[in-house]
Amino acid sequence: MAADRITVNGRDYRWPRKPVVVVCVDGCEPDYVNQAISAGAASFLARLDGSGTCLTADCVVPSFTNPNNLSIVTGVPPSVHGICGNYFWDRESGAEVMMNDARYLRTGTILAAFSQHGAKVAAITAKDKLRALLGHELEGVCFSAEKADQVTRAANGIDHVLELVGMPRPDVYSAALSEFVFAAGVKLMQAAKPDIMYLSTTDYVQHKAAPGTSAANAFVAMMDRYLAELDRLDATVVVTADHGMNAKTDAFGRPNIVYLQDLLDQWYGAGTARVILPITDPYVAHHGALGSFATAYLPARSIDDAARRIAALPGIELVLSREAASVRFELPPDRIGDLVIVSERLSVIGSARTRHDLSGLDAPLRSHGGLSEQRVPLIANRRASALPPGHRWRNFDAFDLALNRLP
Amino acid sequence: MAADRITVNGRDYRWPRKPVVVVCVDGCEPDYVNQAISAGAASFLARLDGSGTCLTADCVVPSFTNPNNLSIVTGVPPSVHGICGNYFWDRESGAEVMMNDARYLRTGTILAAFSQHGAKVAAITAKDKLRALLGHELEGVCFSAEKADQVTRAANGIDHVLELVGMPRPDVYSAALSEFVFAAGVKLMQAAKPDIMYLSTTDYVQHKAAPGTSAANAFVAMMDRYLAELDRLDATVVVTADHGMNAKTDAFGRPNIVYLQDLLDQWYGAGTARVILPITDPYVAHHGALGSFATAYLPARSIDDAARRIAALPGIELVLSREAASVRFELPPDRIGDLVIVSERLSVIGSARTRHDLSGLDAPLRSHGGLSEQRVPLIANRRASALPPGHRWRNFDAFDLALNRLP
Repeated sequence: MAADRITVNGRDYRWPRKPVVVVCVDGCEPDYVNQAISAGAASFLARLDGSGTCLTADCVVPSFTNPNNLSIVTGVPPSVHGICGNYFWDRESGAEVMMNDARYLRTGTILAAFSQHGAKVAAITAKDKLRALLGHELEGVCFSAEKADQVTRAANGIDHVLELVGMPRPDVYSAALSEFVFAAGVKLMQAAKPDIMYLSTTDYVQHKAAPGTSAANAFVAMMDRYLAELDRLDATVVVTADHGMNAKTDAFGRPNIVYLQDLLDQWYGAGTARVILPITDPYVAHHGALGSFATAYLPARSIDDAARRIAALPGIELVLSREAASVRFELPPDRIGDLVIVSERLSVIGSARTRHDLSGLDAPLRSHGGLSEQRVPLIANRRASALPPGHRWRNFDAFDLALNRLP
Repeated sequence: MAADRITVNGRDYRWPRKPVVVVCVDGCEPDYVNQAISAGAASFLARLDGSGTCLTADCVVPSFTNPNNLSIVTGVPPSVHGICGNYFWDRESGAEVMMNDARYLRTGTILAAFSQHGAKVAAITAKDKLRALLGHELEGVCFSAEKADQVTRAANGIDHVLELVGMPRPDVYSAALSEFVFAAGVKLMQAAKPDIMYLSTTDYVQHKAAPGTSAANAFVAMMDRYLAELDRLDATVVVTADHGMNAKTDAFGRPNIVYLQDLLDQWYGAGTARVILPITDPYVAHHGALGSFATAYLPARSIDDAARRIAALPGIELVLSREAASVRFELPPDRIGDLVIVSERLSVIGSARTRHDLSGLDAPLRSHGGLSEQRVPLIANRRASALPPGHRWRNFDAFDLALNRLP
């Protein structure tokens, strides 16, 4: 019944002989794990140094949640799967279009393909915004911690999740939202032993707490306990991240923000250019919709001039044309603007000053989106043999590592 | 007697009306201060948000201690002052030459110039390696915490320093070495009220402890208490850093090292090319002589080929020719190799594997040297009025800020 291997988006994946769990830890800068191990807060992960695998991989830029989660579950960059952020500007309809609907997905997922070939597949996300995309054509279990009280067998392939997990539905802005994902994963592994499981957390803690601080170490310690459980259940576990995380402030903790829409309005007149911040989504309290990546739509005559002016701004690392950005970052050219702008490690890009509500920031801004958040861990609880030397690992090699390269 | 202003290396500096203290905090990534403020461990620095100034500045690349300390006290980049690392390769003599002697300094310092015009000047460093350079032609007080028990009035312009400070001479690998610098600065300000004082610490703590961790917060808290003392003594205080600091490991805490000499030996034959790591000095236990900057000397026929191969290595961010590096980083072309190599944020560059002793590393490697450690704080205890907008601040604008731009 089960195939020996199946091909998804041009890559071959072996059929799992043991349950495989791929975990995307939202905002997991490698130093979160390192610091927690150093502090003695992650004994399971510490033991993997020797018995497991630890690579450092590049995520997709923009180093945002949706593009990277979709890359991980499809095994390909956004140029193939189409999801390059939460928003793009549809010039023809003159509207900002939210890309969290599966109709914007241009290819199938590894999860869906295995489920359609008879594998038991489960996907659990923290926030509901990812569920529709990750669950696209998935014949199995798919639900979010955020809406764990609303799951139905018809819609989610499972019911009574709160009872299964034994936790109340957590608040959407909480560390518990991610813990619920791990707890549900362990319970599901015990109860249903899926062949393939995908767990995706939220970066609520990472947006507030730096690596090595007590809240961060407590988060990794929590994760470490659940990963140890999955390991005890004989699952092959691969842990990666959608993106890293950096402080985006000065030494006093004040955010370094380039308000790009204000500048473009000033240079070319209000309403002439349009800045899209693809980090924007309905959940912005913890980062104020401020990340290190923006795309801008401009009149053709202003593109070169704007590129020069933006590149000269303090806080800006890189400005690329649509064509150059599409090639370098493997993005779909029809869903990015005329320019792609990346800010440096300690700076973020805003739209107009009046459009950002920073009142929800109760800690100095930490965020992501740029090249400075591209390095992420790629960890396995088994030792990979004979990995290609000098290979540039991507976080979207997670299923390849889990299914093809581990014993 | 005293001039109204004096000119040093092409920049004008106003004569100080109050005592001026410029502090170079070794390895002070801006987030060290931010995290300590957030943790409530730095009440004086916290109060400066409102009454003081906080800029984020670029240090000199290579983001190492000596080039940046010399830039701060001369007000100019290494292309002018000549000190671009601890070592360079003298092709003519066929020897590696250590640049911590004042004869390699190509220009005078702000400290020396003011002292020669009658100002009372003092410079206190943590390690002795900097003393000779910082004290070049300085007519005043200049000593290191490391050799605080050996100062003489003839050599250092002061004696009985241990008695003055009331602390024992600290170990060269300790947080106390930096505390001694601050404590001596406060005592000297009370006892002698210098017109201009320069304090330069060591990054022993920062090489081990990430921002926000308890050891790091304790260091900033210590610094905060002494800065508050200097402020109470009515000094104008400007705090900057020689460079930032980043983890240089994978998620398990294992160092990410590109052993460049081994690769060049393999590609072109042993002894053909020479890698110089300008971080190397007699004090390497805390970083194993591993930083994110290297320069390589090669036969002319191999330069282009090596540049291409090195740029393709995982962990490498940038490879520049001597000419390009001299322009971009403002370095003296005669003291760098045919290629300048910068590694990315989580990686360092080694020479030959056998030449690095990592046994002294008792914590996961943290280091500096690259572009990823270029952003540093530039803080003042007075509010600067009318700073030029969009200006790229450098850490070597510290004396300009302190003397020319503060009330």
